[in-house]
Amino acid sequence: MAKKRIQNDDPCSVARALQEVGDWWSLLIVRQAMFGSRRFSDFQQQLGIARNILVDRLSRLVETEVLKKVDVGESGRRYEYRLTEKGRDLFPVLVALRQWGDRWNPCPGQPPLVLRDHRSGQPVPRVQVLDARGRPLELVDVYVDEDNSQQDAG
Amino acid sequence: MAKKRIQNDDPCSVARALQEVGDWWSLLIVRQAMFGSRRFSDFQQQLGIARNILVDRLSRLVETEVLKKVDVGESGRRYEYRLTEKGRDLFPVLVALRQWGDRWNPCPGQPPLVLRDHRSGQPVPRVQVLDARGRPLELVDVYVDEDNSQQDAG
Repeated sequence: MAKKRIQNDDPCSVARALQEVGDWWSLLIVRQAMFGSRRFSDFQQQLGIARNILVDRLSRLVETEVLKKVDVGESGRRYEYRLTEKGRDLFPVLVALRQWGDRWNPCPGQPPLVLRDHRSGQPVPRVQVLDARGRPLELVDVYVDEDNSQQDAG
Repeated sequence: MAKKRIQNDDPCSVARALQEVGDWWSLLIVRQAMFGSRRFSDFQQQLGIARNILVDRLSRLVETEVLKKVDVGESGRRYEYRLTEKGRDLFPVLVALRQWGDRWNPCPGQPPLVLRDHRSGQPVPRVQVLDARGRPLELVDVYVDEDNSQQDAG
């Protein structure tokens, strides 16, 4: 149960959230892919991740169809890793996680990265759980329908 | 870099999402806490987690102030683990993750657990990233303000 090393000075709140809540190289790879990384060397450089771990996690992400591996070489082979629809669909998870990190574990001496909306240039508001009418829901407002599960009867 | 074992027949979509995207005992513990688990034995039983790993993860969650350890014994000591405000604030992350799992990795032969709103009894809609006016944003609609980061310049 080794802990993955995430650099302590990593400026990204997502990475810092992960440092607390789990150890999630895969999600960090997805996050980098969302912000434009496609090549093995990009991921390696941006994440500071060991080569063998990156190989393992990329192939797992391809296997589970979060990423797809595409040959983009015009002469000879050159591979890129691109998000599938399933991978892109992790967007709300990553934004919510980033915001949690920004709120509870900001990087000392650095303002958090700001996620902005192309249309307006405004910061993206906090991701919330909303009811069908768009009213915010907190944890106390919801329950799990237990018909299907004894496990959630806590 | 050992992989944590999550039972293949675990009925929870969150667990199944984690199996693909990372290995996140800590987040599974938080999830159980959100649905009412408080005692060591509850977590152990519900998660099927080895005792030494549970000890480690609980103490890490207490250390990072996601959980607090409370002595609730009337005569003698009895401890409970309760979510702090920081822990409860992971609610949108977990709901978004659960929904992703439900969509992309449903449990074979079992309908997904349904999260409902106490007020209306209706299922909780999909968590989305919204702009300041409440319009849905997709990945292509946002950018990271790069003034603070070279790392996100992918």
